[in-house]
Amino acid sequence: MPQSMNLTQKILAAHLVEGSLEPGSEIAIKPDQVLTQDATGTMVYLQFETTGLNRIKVDLGVSYIDHNLLQVGYENADDHRYLASVAAKFGVHLSRAGNGICHQIHLERFVRPGGFLLGSDSHTPTAGGAGMLGIGAGGLDVAVALAGAPYFLRMPRVVRVELRGRLRPWVAAKDVILELLRRLTVKGGVGCIFEYTGPGVATLSVYERATICNMGAELGATSSLFPSDERTREFFQSVGREEDWQPLEADVGADYDEEIVINLDELEPLIAQPHSPDNVVKVNEIAGMPVQQVVIGSCTNSSLEDMAIAAEILKGKVIPPHVSLVIAPGTRRILRMMIANGILDTLIESGARILEVGCGPCNGIGQSPASGSVSVRTVNRNYRGRSGTEDALVYIASPAVAAATALRGRITDPRELGDMPELKISKIYPVDDNLIVTPPPEGEKVEIVRGPNIKPVPQTDPLPDKLELTVMLKAGDNVSTDDIIPGGARLLSLRSNIPAMAEYTFSRLDSGFVGRVKEHNRPWMVVGGENFGQGSSREHAVLAPLYLGLKVVVAKSFARIYRQNLINYGVLPLILAEPEDYACISLGAVFTLERLRNKLLEEKSLVLEDKSKGLKIPVVHDLSQREVELILSGGLLRYVGSNN
Amino acid sequence: MPQSMNLTQKILAAHLVEGSLEPGSEIAIKPDQVLTQDATGTMVYLQFETTGLNRIKVDLGVSYIDHNLLQVGYENADDHRYLASVAAKFGVHLSRAGNGICHQIHLERFVRPGGFLLGSDSHTPTAGGAGMLGIGAGGLDVAVALAGAPYFLRMPRVVRVELRGRLRPWVAAKDVILELLRRLTVKGGVGCIFEYTGPGVATLSVYERATICNMGAELGATSSLFPSDERTREFFQSVGREEDWQPLEADVGADYDEEIVINLDELEPLIAQPHSPDNVVKVNEIAGMPVQQVVIGSCTNSSLEDMAIAAEILKGKVIPPHVSLVIAPGTRRILRMMIANGILDTLIESGARILEVGCGPCNGIGQSPASGSVSVRTVNRNYRGRSGTEDALVYIASPAVAAATALRGRITDPRELGDMPELKISKIYPVDDNLIVTPPPEGEKVEIVRGPNIKPVPQTDPLPDKLELTVMLKAGDNVSTDDIIPGGARLLSLRSNIPAMAEYTFSRLDSGFVGRVKEHNRPWMVVGGENFGQGSSREHAVLAPLYLGLKVVVAKSFARIYRQNLINYGVLPLILAEPEDYACISLGAVFTLERLRNKLLEEKSLVLEDKSKGLKIPVVHDLSQREVELILSGGLLRYVGSNN
Repeated sequence: MPQSMNLTQKILAAHLVEGSLEPGSEIAIKPDQVLTQDATGTMVYLQFETTGLNRIKVDLGVSYIDHNLLQVGYENADDHRYLASVAAKFGVHLSRAGNGICHQIHLERFVRPGGFLLGSDSHTPTAGGAGMLGIGAGGLDVAVALAGAPYFLRMPRVVRVELRGRLRPWVAAKDVILELLRRLTVKGGVGCIFEYTGPGVATLSVYERATICNMGAELGATSSLFPSDERTREFFQSVGREEDWQPLEADVGADYDEEIVINLDELEPLIAQPHSPDNVVKVNEIAGMPVQQVVIGSCTNSSLEDMAIAAEILKGKVIPPHVSLVIAPGTRRILRMMIANGILDTLIESGARILEVGCGPCNGIGQSPASGSVSVRTVNRNYRGRSGTEDALVYIASPAVAAATALRGRITDPRELGDMPELKISKIYPVDDNLIVTPPPEGEKVEIVRGPNIKPVPQTDPLPDKLELTVMLKAGDNVSTDDIIPGGARLLSLRSNIPAMAEYTFSRLDSGFVGRVKEHNRPWMVVGGENFGQGSSREHAVLAPLYLGLKVVVAKSFARIYRQNLINYGVLPLILAEPEDYACISLGAVFTLERLRNKLLEEKSLVLEDKSKGLKIPVVHDLSQREVELILSGGLLRYVGSNN
Repeated sequence: MPQSMNLTQKILAAHLVEGSLEPGSEIAIKPDQVLTQDATGTMVYLQFETTGLNRIKVDLGVSYIDHNLLQVGYENADDHRYLASVAAKFGVHLSRAGNGICHQIHLERFVRPGGFLLGSDSHTPTAGGAGMLGIGAGGLDVAVALAGAPYFLRMPRVVRVELRGRLRPWVAAKDVILELLRRLTVKGGVGCIFEYTGPGVATLSVYERATICNMGAELGATSSLFPSDERTREFFQSVGREEDWQPLEADVGADYDEEIVINLDELEPLIAQPHSPDNVVKVNEIAGMPVQQVVIGSCTNSSLEDMAIAAEILKGKVIPPHVSLVIAPGTRRILRMMIANGILDTLIESGARILEVGCGPCNGIGQSPASGSVSVRTVNRNYRGRSGTEDALVYIASPAVAAATALRGRITDPRELGDMPELKISKIYPVDDNLIVTPPPEGEKVEIVRGPNIKPVPQTDPLPDKLELTVMLKAGDNVSTDDIIPGGARLLSLRSNIPAMAEYTFSRLDSGFVGRVKEHNRPWMVVGGENFGQGSSREHAVLAPLYLGLKVVVAKSFARIYRQNLINYGVLPLILAEPEDYACISLGAVFTLERLRNKLLEEKSLVLEDKSKGLKIPVVHDLSQREVELILSGGLLRYVGSNN
């Protein structure tokens, strides 16, 4: 251990079970807390059930119901009931539908500075706003963590982001993370933890910090962290948990793998254009573009401050007739404070539509925009089609930009509105746990309630020693998990039913894909570009193609959680040794991989051979010994099973 | 005209264009106002477009967007945009998504005592709570009314309902209409207008009266009416429209076709059991049954009083963990008053989920219950599957019963809770029109925006003189429009796309139906029992089977709006002369109808002949001369076209 440690090292060291904190080497860390949400959680608990344990083996597990609250059809309500019953049985706290977004609730209710939270949601790093390390992982990783296993990851590089100065009026925390995305792109943070330091930190509230950490996920980062300081203490006070606060910061002179400086007072209001969160420009570069929808909410921007600035902008005014303004408050507590502080009434009067508290339309769960229309949202992702409308043009910005845009009916730099109003928030409520169900001390008598749409987890098989694989899809860079298996309300209801869900595999990239693969009816592979599998953590993006026979993905590089999900389900992720070989691989080609077991265990490089053409493509793998054995044994559940 | 007129006669006489007010004879009446909602409205305006008119020819048309606010996929938002553009073009007021339920908004904003409102929604009679005659009709009837044509109907029988006494504590207006449903059944009001009189009337607020008139639709009634009195004046005052009030009541000594007496002080809390609104028992007969969901809202029960009683019951308490309590306030104004009066905060604190203002889950648009679970709702219909969950058990009751049930987690007679609290409502807001768009004075330059899911109206054909028809379905009594073409959020998005929607025709009664009909590929008929086509007014229940080749429906009796929709689209409704012949008609039988033109014009009876079996089934029609010609010419649009 180094003598002066950065914050990341401190937290990792305190949770380390295996390995050493050398960048790139595999470490195992034990979470203090685990969170799940309904979109990924059903699968997590189905997997946990297969372990045969009676009770979770982690200090705190919280199951949140916040994603699919629309309940179109019986499937979602059945999922909710299943989640409630497994939570009671296995000792997991349940945050019921109506309580709010997991990351917000967790921040206010459970986060502890210096702790480690593993979550089956890619925005779990939100906890970093209050000094807790939050890492998003695939459902299977989370299931085994609930079973008491540590979480394995490659020791990330730690990037110091020094914040200097103070944000100017109308510039928001959202603009800080958009600036980082502008500079680094959606793959700029892969394998990194971003640690925020410098004098600018103290100028940001925990909610602002949480926004920055939350959307660090869009950099591809493993996590993001703020120190725990006086502002953090104020936050803990405000939610009635001052006893959970402790100060925490990097040691003086700590080392970092990389350093970035952001002068807060140089930032301007920014906006990410379609269809990627890193396609960032200054708002005033595209100001004036007419918009048809504005959405304020999501785990990135649904705090009371976010709602308050919107209300100040809209106070006493009415949105134009061509704009639909949609507000999804983050939690019940926020909604109640919006009532108490006059914010809700102001927003309603201005013409806003107030949705149920929860994740809202972020992930295409309702409020899909009209065909080809422009929607400005405070969310974190604007991948094509994620809104539920394939040809919608979704922009990402701060609540101030969103509200100013709603008011004018066109993309608007809020600095056009004159002086920024002061936010008058006088009534702060403590957290209430009325919709959190504490599990009974014993779960043995609890019966699990399984609706007809809840199917067992598909079985995985050990990897054969020789594979003959047809290239069934050739995809480009930055393929998202949405591209692999679409999100949105319709498919969300099939999350616990892989056979039904598999029918939509790669449908956004190739509408005939499933038909071709079924006809093919032999093992197959996919070829991708850089950052394959970015976006949402949901493992259905592996489970669905796996169900259809996927064995190998070859890409230029992988997004972290997706790579892990592949490994966990026994699918081999291979990296092109020469990125330019991408051009040599054609759709329908048949490649052979031989003596796989020995090759994977003994060497880092392999050869994909197309015998019909005499073509040899060198590929490498970056798997640890443990990961190789995990794949060979047919995935994490089999591996854990055979090692117990 | 009789010297002493009842209220119905007075209003009909004032709007009469053709015919005389003899029960059973066809009359034509001209509406003062027309309302549409988004689920039926898209089709209404597509039909209006085919008339070639530039502007509506009725004093006031209001297009409400209140049903499908979930916007799962682009289709709904495209519908909303289409509705906004046609409203501006043709001179219709638009009540935007987020403003609230059509019947509530219309009551508060537009209803006038003594007027006649035609609406493309079966609950249009809600207007009767303030002394306006409201009639629900199919979309095509509404489209031609917008084009200036009168509305044709058979002069209804007028039923006097004398209310005596006063409701006891915990007994609600909902119990009055449930009592009528208990006595009369869902077909007991067919061909009738219910006129409420007697000393009990003055004890009911306009909102309570509106609840009764609203759910008169479930009796099969053409409409329901309350007089306009001092309570009505108070209501108009409260919404800032005192100038629109005028007193109106039946003349002393007016005649009625039938009389019913309800002693309000003898009523107890009632509840309709699955799967029909007339399956009514006293709450205390089934008290104690565990429930999983409670829904308070819908056009029947979403007034401020309804919300206030729920809040009083739940104040300072928390619902049990197994109950999901869902609240859908009726309008923005109600929501704002809930905030101002502390009602919203109380409900949130108790654990309620607050949905966007609008129709909410009534029609299966979200909040579908878990499989096989019990849901107690304040809505008006509980047909099997209407909640979106085929095997859910939906009960209908008052807000007090619903809230008491949510509190206890089991069906609860609110009288168990002790004294009824006094409702303290101190802050009454005037109506605000911030989400109502007034059309521009000229619409010529407005461009209609049509998304890819908006398809032209299917063409209808003149009725051939000879028909050979296969019986493709044999259905029982009380087949609802939901049975013919399901409601719910998924299908709602196809309302403007009949070819896509037709794939679901009769799918709830026979999952293989569409396949069989497509294979059959020749004209066909359906046989039904009593009250065929009850429920929602949506004409898709005719358009979808029509698109698949339906020519004739033979039933023991028809629901009013459905019958009219059949006629409007040129489908022949025939009534079994001998109800017991129903048993002689078998699935797959082929019947011939010959010399149709002459028969229909000259006689009331026809014969369905199955030549292969030598079977003759006598049937009758109750069509007016005009209706016969309308069917022969291929439906209302062709008929109006050929008569202009």
